[in-house]
Amino acid sequence: MNVTITSTKNKELEAKIQHKIDLKTKPIGALGMLENIAFQIGCIQQTVSPKITKPTIVVFAGDHGIAAQGEVNPFPQEVTSQMVYNFAQGGAAINVLSKTNNIDLKVVDAGVNHDFANDLNIINAKVAMGTKNYQDSPAMTPRELEITIRHAEDIVSNLHKEGVNTIGFGEMGIGNTSSASLLMSYFTQIPIGECIGSGTGLDQNGISKKQRILSEVYRNYNIQNPIEALTTFGGFEVAMITGAILKAAELKMTIVIDGFIVTAALLAAHAIQPNVLDYCLFAHTSNEQGHIKMLDFLKVQPILSLGLRLGEGTGAALAIPLLQASVNFLDEMASFESAGVSGETTN
Amino acid sequence: MNVTITSTKNKELEAKIQHKIDLKTKPIGALGMLENIAFQIGCIQQTVSPKITKPTIVVFAGDHGIAAQGEVNPFPQEVTSQMVYNFAQGGAAINVLSKTNNIDLKVVDAGVNHDFANDLNIINAKVAMGTKNYQDSPAMTPRELEITIRHAEDIVSNLHKEGVNTIGFGEMGIGNTSSASLLMSYFTQIPIGECIGSGTGLDQNGISKKQRILSEVYRNYNIQNPIEALTTFGGFEVAMITGAILKAAELKMTIVIDGFIVTAALLAAHAIQPNVLDYCLFAHTSNEQGHIKMLDFLKVQPILSLGLRLGEGTGAALAIPLLQASVNFLDEMASFESAGVSGETTN
Repeated sequence: MNVTITSTKNKELEAKIQHKIDLKTKPIGALGMLENIAFQIGCIQQTVSPKITKPTIVVFAGDHGIAAQGEVNPFPQEVTSQMVYNFAQGGAAINVLSKTNNIDLKVVDAGVNHDFANDLNIINAKVAMGTKNYQDSPAMTPRELEITIRHAEDIVSNLHKEGVNTIGFGEMGIGNTSSASLLMSYFTQIPIGECIGSGTGLDQNGISKKQRILSEVYRNYNIQNPIEALTTFGGFEVAMITGAILKAAELKMTIVIDGFIVTAALLAAHAIQPNVLDYCLFAHTSNEQGHIKMLDFLKVQPILSLGLRLGEGTGAALAIPLLQASVNFLDEMASFESAGVSGETTN
Repeated sequence: MNVTITSTKNKELEAKIQHKIDLKTKPIGALGMLENIAFQIGCIQQTVSPKITKPTIVVFAGDHGIAAQGEVNPFPQEVTSQMVYNFAQGGAAINVLSKTNNIDLKVVDAGVNHDFANDLNIINAKVAMGTKNYQDSPAMTPRELEITIRHAEDIVSNLHKEGVNTIGFGEMGIGNTSSASLLMSYFTQIPIGECIGSGTGLDQNGISKKQRILSEVYRNYNIQNPIEALTTFGGFEVAMITGAILKAAELKMTIVIDGFIVTAALLAAHAIQPNVLDYCLFAHTSNEQGHIKMLDFLKVQPILSLGLRLGEGTGAALAIPLLQASVNFLDEMASFESAGVSGETTN
């Protein structure tokens, strides 16, 4: 993964952005998190007047070898391809939420175990018909990971060329909370049992079984580096998000990180290039213990907490209007001077 | 206050709405708070297909007798009228956030201590040139409260006639956190000292002084009912919001409750007609201890927590896109059957 990500740190610019925020007609700090968001996007774009152009969510879909037996997933594997059709036809939650908030939506077949018709409105970046089951062998080969990353870079570069400067990532893949838990355990060094939640709907028995299965998987490997973690635990959609995050940061885009799986993909990106965090805003925290621990590990503060547990990029779609509100207040609000409003007295 | 507010409770309809939510292509409950919002708006509109039409925020401005000396407020009193000009010219935070989210904005002079030009783009509902200082006498007369409520009813009725079915309230009034704290103490029976925070920017000395002054004010009166609480502690903008909330609930509008002051106005409305809560969604919780205690008292869950402490209806403006997202998913998302997606297995 041959990307170079520069830090956004620039003390002179930071002082200018903060000064512009503080002169707005409001008490200092009164717009709370909106001020932090505006500040960060200003730093990302290296300007006191950042803009959000063509906000886009890319949903990556892939299948997982382990999901074929249905031991870790309450929905059957074919739901991945069925949901890709649902995305293509506009019927899923992410379609409705993106449309509501004027966000472009792209759907990518990163490795779904299904042959889609050529005229389906999705991006074909299929690496294989799903990953292999990591209970038996690594999920993908090093060569497959290379292809996965190259697809990611092409997709993000093309969007950047089209004028997209703000990008959110979503995912669909029955069984991908298992991949995400394994990756989380490797990158955070939190024991695998504590990285597992109910996914999209396991009960306590289901969770215990998933803990048993994934603990055994984790013990069977001796991962040495981020690349090995991605090839071993997959999946194609997760690794493609890792590549997409790294490329988007290299291109100085604002990156909106959604839930558990996308954050797991970010953990890999962060291990490869820690500066990537400068470009990331965190859309949502779910009630999943694992997700909260990931955010704590990264020492970041999510924008929303709405109890979502769906993936697809739904948290990102709901957070983007708050990014828009943040850059707009920085751009459009009057200052005390321009509005003729008296400032705070010093009593 | 001669309004009749019916409860939205309707078991048959509630079952239908919940059924419609549960058939959408997502795990049960996976859209979290969006599901609760869609459910509540369905109940308010008594339909499985609710719509949000012409969402509007009304900002009420008024001055407070106590603010003239500057003992409880870090900004001088004239900032109220200066901010009304700022609203009228489009330069305040609420202007930018409303515009960002396609929300109509109305500004009401409920009793600002300033003569505005007739051609200023505000609604003139001025009751008086600010309230009287409740350190000396009640903030307003019973007759002034009647006029205040009548103005509120007219404003909301007119908006309802224009097709507005979703309404948020904001406020501007230097010193109005003091009114809100006094009202909060009366309606929740929490000691006044615990109802006081930093407002828009008091330091610890300022807070202690405010606690001392307002404790004395509270001791000087022996309030017997909600009407007396409103006349005694004011202000015009707060009481006008109480009237507006009651009228909006009578007209079965969805009401978006913003921060500390608007919630104080709701406490009065709630004491008069408890059913009003059926129509209210809570936009935001601030870090103000007082606001958190109010929401706990009402046993309600806010949608956002962004550390805002500005008022003006800014929390409401930021929450309305989430209301829109909620009714849209209920209306537009495919069901498992319509999308041909397999449901959860029972393992």
